[in-house]
Amino acid sequence: MRPIEVGVLGGTGMVGQHFVRFLQGHPWFKLAWLGASDRSAGKRYKDATAWRLEGDMPSEVQDIVVAECKTGSAPRLVFSAMDASVATEIEREFAQGGHIVVSNSRNHRMETDVPLLVPEINAGHLGLIRIQQRNRGWKGMIVTNPNCSTVVLTMALAPLLPFGIERVFATTMQAVSGAGYPGVASLDILGNVVPFIGGEEDKMQQETQKILGHLSDGKVIPLPTRVSAQCNRVAVTDGHVVAASVALAKKPSLDQLRTAINEFKGLPQQKKLPSAPAQPVVYLEQQDRPQPRRDAARDNGMTVTVGRLRECPVLDLKFVACGHNAIRGAAGAAVLNAELMVSEGFLD
Amino acid sequence: MRPIEVGVLGGTGMVGQHFVRFLQGHPWFKLAWLGASDRSAGKRYKDATAWRLEGDMPSEVQDIVVAECKTGSAPRLVFSAMDASVATEIEREFAQGGHIVVSNSRNHRMETDVPLLVPEINAGHLGLIRIQQRNRGWKGMIVTNPNCSTVVLTMALAPLLPFGIERVFATTMQAVSGAGYPGVASLDILGNVVPFIGGEEDKMQQETQKILGHLSDGKVIPLPTRVSAQCNRVAVTDGHVVAASVALAKKPSLDQLRTAINEFKGLPQQKKLPSAPAQPVVYLEQQDRPQPRRDAARDNGMTVTVGRLRECPVLDLKFVACGHNAIRGAAGAAVLNAELMVSEGFLD
Amino acid sequence: MRPIEVGVLGGTGMVGQHFVRFLQGHPWFKLAWLGASDRSAGKRYKDATAWRLEGDMPSEVQDIVVAECKTGSAPRLVFSAMDASVATEIEREFAQGGHIVVSNSRNHRMETDVPLLVPEINAGHLGLIRIQQRNRGWKGMIVTNPNCSTVVLTMALAPLLPFGIERVFATTMQAVSGAGYPGVASLDILGNVVPFIGGEEDKMQQETQKILGHLSDGKVIPLPTRVSAQCNRVAVTDGHVVAASVALAKKPSLDQLRTAINEFKGLPQQKKLPSAPAQPVVYLEQQDRPQPRRDAARDNGMTVTVGRLRECPVLDLKFVACGHNAIRGAAGAAVLNAELMVSEGFLD
Amino acid sequence: MRPIEVGVLGGTGMVGQHFVRFLQGHPWFKLAWLGASDRSAGKRYKDATAWRLEGDMPSEVQDIVVAECKTGSAPRLVFSAMDASVATEIEREFAQGGHIVVSNSRNHRMETDVPLLVPEINAGHLGLIRIQQRNRGWKGMIVTNPNCSTVVLTMALAPLLPFGIERVFATTMQAVSGAGYPGVASLDILGNVVPFIGGEEDKMQQETQKILGHLSDGKVIPLPTRVSAQCNRVAVTDGHVVAASVALAKKPSLDQLRTAINEFKGLPQQKKLPSAPAQPVVYLEQQDRPQPRRDAARDNGMTVTVGRLRECPVLDLKFVACGHNAIRGAAGAAVLNAELMVSEGFLD
Repeated sequence: MRPIEVGVLGGTGMVGQHFVRFLQGHPWFKLAWLGASDRSAGKRYKDATAWRLEGDMPSEVQDIVVAECKTGSAPRLVFSAMDASVATEIEREFAQGGHIVVSNSRNHRMETDVPLLVPEINAGHLGLIRIQQRNRGWKGMIVTNPNCSTVVLTMALAPLLPFGIERVFATTMQAVSGAGYPGVASLDILGNVVPFIGGEEDKMQQETQKILGHLSDGKVIPLPTRVSAQCNRVAVTDGHVVAASVALAKKPSLDQLRTAINEFKGLPQQKKLPSAPAQPVVYLEQQDRPQPRRDAARDNGMTVTVGRLRECPVLDLKFVACGHNAIRGAAGAAVLNAELMVSEGFLD
Repeated sequence: MRPIEVGVLGGTGMVGQHFVRFLQGHPWFKLAWLGASDRSAGKRYKDATAWRLEGDMPSEVQDIVVAECKTGSAPRLVFSAMDASVATEIEREFAQGGHIVVSNSRNHRMETDVPLLVPEINAGHLGLIRIQQRNRGWKGMIVTNPNCSTVVLTMALAPLLPFGIERVFATTMQAVSGAGYPGVASLDILGNVVPFIGGEEDKMQQETQKILGHLSDGKVIPLPTRVSAQCNRVAVTDGHVVAASVALAKKPSLDQLRTAINEFKGLPQQKKLPSAPAQPVVYLEQQDRPQPRRDAARDNGMTVTVGRLRECPVLDLKFVACGHNAIRGAAGAAVLNAELMVSEGFLD
Repeated sequence: MRPIEVGVLGGTGMVGQHFVRFLQGHPWFKLAWLGASDRSAGKRYKDATAWRLEGDMPSEVQDIVVAECKTGSAPRLVFSAMDASVATEIEREFAQGGHIVVSNSRNHRMETDVPLLVPEINAGHLGLIRIQQRNRGWKGMIVTNPNCSTVVLTMALAPLLPFGIERVFATTMQAVSGAGYPGVASLDILGNVVPFIGGEEDKMQQETQKILGHLSDGKVIPLPTRVSAQCNRVAVTDGHVVAASVALAKKPSLDQLRTAINEFKGLPQQKKLPSAPAQPVVYLEQQDRPQPRRDAARDNGMTVTVGRLRECPVLDLKFVACGHNAIRGAAGAAVLNAELMVSEGFLD
Repeated sequence: MRPIEVGVLGGTGMVGQHFVRFLQGHPWFKLAWLGASDRSAGKRYKDATAWRLEGDMPSEVQDIVVAECKTGSAPRLVFSAMDASVATEIEREFAQGGHIVVSNSRNHRMETDVPLLVPEINAGHLGLIRIQQRNRGWKGMIVTNPNCSTVVLTMALAPLLPFGIERVFATTMQAVSGAGYPGVASLDILGNVVPFIGGEEDKMQQETQKILGHLSDGKVIPLPTRVSAQCNRVAVTDGHVVAASVALAKKPSLDQLRTAINEFKGLPQQKKLPSAPAQPVVYLEQQDRPQPRRDAARDNGMTVTVGRLRECPVLDLKFVACGHNAIRGAAGAAVLNAELMVSEGFLD
């Protein structure tokens, strides 16, 4: 297979840098184009970008000349790491211009004809694309991945779907990298907890229902599960933790649930997509896990780790989940979406 | 009023040091006796103690010669900051020997004839003392204060009691000082969250029911409210945060609830006890508060701060509470208990 | 004595907030005026200011209407907490307009006729004021305090001056509050060290020579001591640490040096100025002190703590110093400067 | 080449775990034996060990049955990760019993016939082995690597050796993982700096002289360079930073020095040893680097990163260096030592 050239919209920001790093050495995709604001356009990537990730900027992208976020020169498949303040219009222009926009931005996630995709959970939602193209007269398309904390929650909930999820409580402890750069001021978070992240609780509540919903007659019927989220920022660099309680319609044993978690698989695992972790959700038996510093990077950051499954005095069961917000919650999520789309023939 | 001489059992440990600091300059109590293990007994406090709190060891205690934890030389009123591994027997011996033991240790908290006291909430539980003395044939007594995270939760719940608390979810983010010294290893908590604190969730669930219960026929009838706790350790020095959701029998407006919180008062406020904060629970309007570094020390560490009151999609309402685990959750709690007991005549 | 009304230029920023808090309850000064940018002018302080310090905004300033930074309505004595980007002109206008500008900004520090004042060390440099007023035709004046890391170093060096300081190495570990708000991004400093603070090393090298210099013929002759600084940012909220090595002309014993440190006093101590700590430099014997979290707040943040005095294999001796960057290194420094000036008759 | 079986003395501790992880997939060495204290002996490694590193315990070691630290069953080549309190005798017994002991412990480092080896710098010191064996009548041998902060300093100094190093100042900011587990209490280091690490300054001063010395007549003649170290603990997980100033006999330009750093190579690079980084010391041009979180893991943790080379007002030049204390400063250092010994025929 010849490598598929891809681009990144918003390539110089933090999420853009995560795309650059995650795509390094990708077996299918070759990063060939980087779009950014006027201020950066025309410069080489290494001059336009203050690299903030661990390690050095990959050498193969250093001399790519950054383009404006316009459709002319961009490859057909573009990832969007754009800031929400500009993503709405630019993503639409690209989709209209025939591009496949695989977006991490929140702007189009909740639109009824836009898939909010977690390939292990709702690959079938790609069925919305035909409707999206018809509705909008686009040759291209927009596909989105969820908010970084929603991914962790929904990946942990997905193995429980067969038992009938009725209500969900989720309290998050989220890493600062989720807020981009400069993001959270150190004076706000050192030795502190900030019990507020703008818009995050609504996203977790609504996105979860859409992701876990099913496609029917060209529409996603949201899972009719009430979700209550409390979102907190903690002094962690990477890795979101979710402490959850769940009510289930059926009453499985804890053993059945642990087995369901460990055996959970989706289409990416069946198709052996390049970025698909062998086991998308891993249950740890240790009583003090998962922890962000020790577990967020599991399987290249694409696996969600669950632990502490136990009975809940109010609902049915409690557990803790942890995932990498910048990988499974952003760049890696979008790349896995694109891999699924390639394997389903959307690029043919 | 002549100062009342008091002692501290376990005076060289971290909680003991908090007692020493909190009692500095106390208008009623004079710290005159410090008990510790054999290893420390006979040494001057300054030689027996590695002082770990901010600032220096108060000069007036430096030369007190540390005693063994035996009843002979101790004042009638002793605070217990002993480790749970030794507290059971020693506290009993002191109570049997006629001492008033005001304990921060967990050992006797859940015994049916021992008050688990939060003076603003359940001052009446001191009625158990008569039963305790009769049951056990003691001249002295044991009174306890709750676990450091339970205090924060119950102080935040107390103003809601009139509305009928039916179910409670509480996810904590707890400071490392709650684990004593050396306590949490830095390798476990730097840039990390540890979603487990041994025994803490059970304590929060059971202690809350006892504290909010009512005394009837010489027994505490626990509040029949199911409480579900998830306890996490975060990289904070002092100050526990609790993210809570609550179901109420009545359906007050958010305004009514904010008013109830700000107007909540208890016996310590009526009696103007020396350590009683003027307003025991303060509601902050800012959307990103309370925070441990900015709010835990409010009113000398004795006030619990609440914020983010809002509707909950699953139960009725959500909020965040924060309090100082080492003061309102330990040394300050016990001292306020003792002040209440003095004012109620238990020392006469 | 009737209270002296004072103002703060740049009152809504982080340093401005430290002035507001430090001046709370001041026995001589009454904060009556707060100046800020156009964006804030006309609003009440509580509406113009996102209060970021621990605890709440003092109630007595909440309703002060913020003024523009113009001379009309301001009291004669104004503290400047302005950002360096605007301080040059505004401070000059105030001085020209007859105001006594006691500035924490760096802009005028190194001008030859502006005192760079640490009252315990070089109170005599106030002799420059007469020259400043003559040179510039001002009725008012500008007096400055040093950079926050320079203060810690010079306070620790001052007791060694009688022994002839010949060379100084200083490596700093500086708190994030030294960079203002939002200042250091949490992604840069959590679990990290940033070995660079723009301009800081030059400031430490040059300011130290000026502060320790002597006034002669209307000029400050800098101490001809070579100073080499390496400045690092660490994950600390408040309190700068300086690890220093010093070569001395005379060869005192370590005991003599410890005595010199503990007995060091200056004019503020003789005059018992309100903000003067009883002992401006304290030597701690513990081998692992000073530490910012435990020592920076000593004596209301105005005392510098020194420890670990020992021989140096390359120069003569090594030690560690620690002080509160936002108090002794900013707001408290300026207030002490103003107290000295009042007591020396500059306001008469 | 058939894999060489190796063992780890002290395999269950933190440094032992780093050996286990570093040896995973090693092309020459197969980890076949793990020794630990009586308490662990007889248990499978997974049952004897609380794994504390990021990620999971490698599956291939989980079922190895831990042995006592006795010579009987151990492979000829053993790495020592033993605590200093027990290493002296056990390492001697192993060397006497014919084993090649490649030790990370400090116990034998400064003995005159024991190589203190950094393969890029002083591979020739292996010449001491013949003398060691003769002196002691051993068939086996002990070879050591330096203290974790010394490695960072000496790797940064090695490229400067041709210019004649005359004096060195080194102030460290060291990660908590350097202190093992539980090591530094979180209450001591959160939001704090501890300016003391027991014994560390002496080690840095003495070990540096030995490492940079030359072998002559069967003895290491230490480099006659005075070294002054100040060691501090900071809130970093992995990666030590050293801020250094150096006086040189020759006066190279900064450009010459940067070139010397980037072009520095040693025997491990010539021999392409498996763990040898292609470039052992990397100079970064960015003004705010190196930083532990971004640079310590460079080249699998085996490269030391240098930056901020500039003139020093007191000596000749200043720079900052950073390296991974647990890899280049411990497990990786010892493995590289063993690789060098294999390639030099010590195992034949």
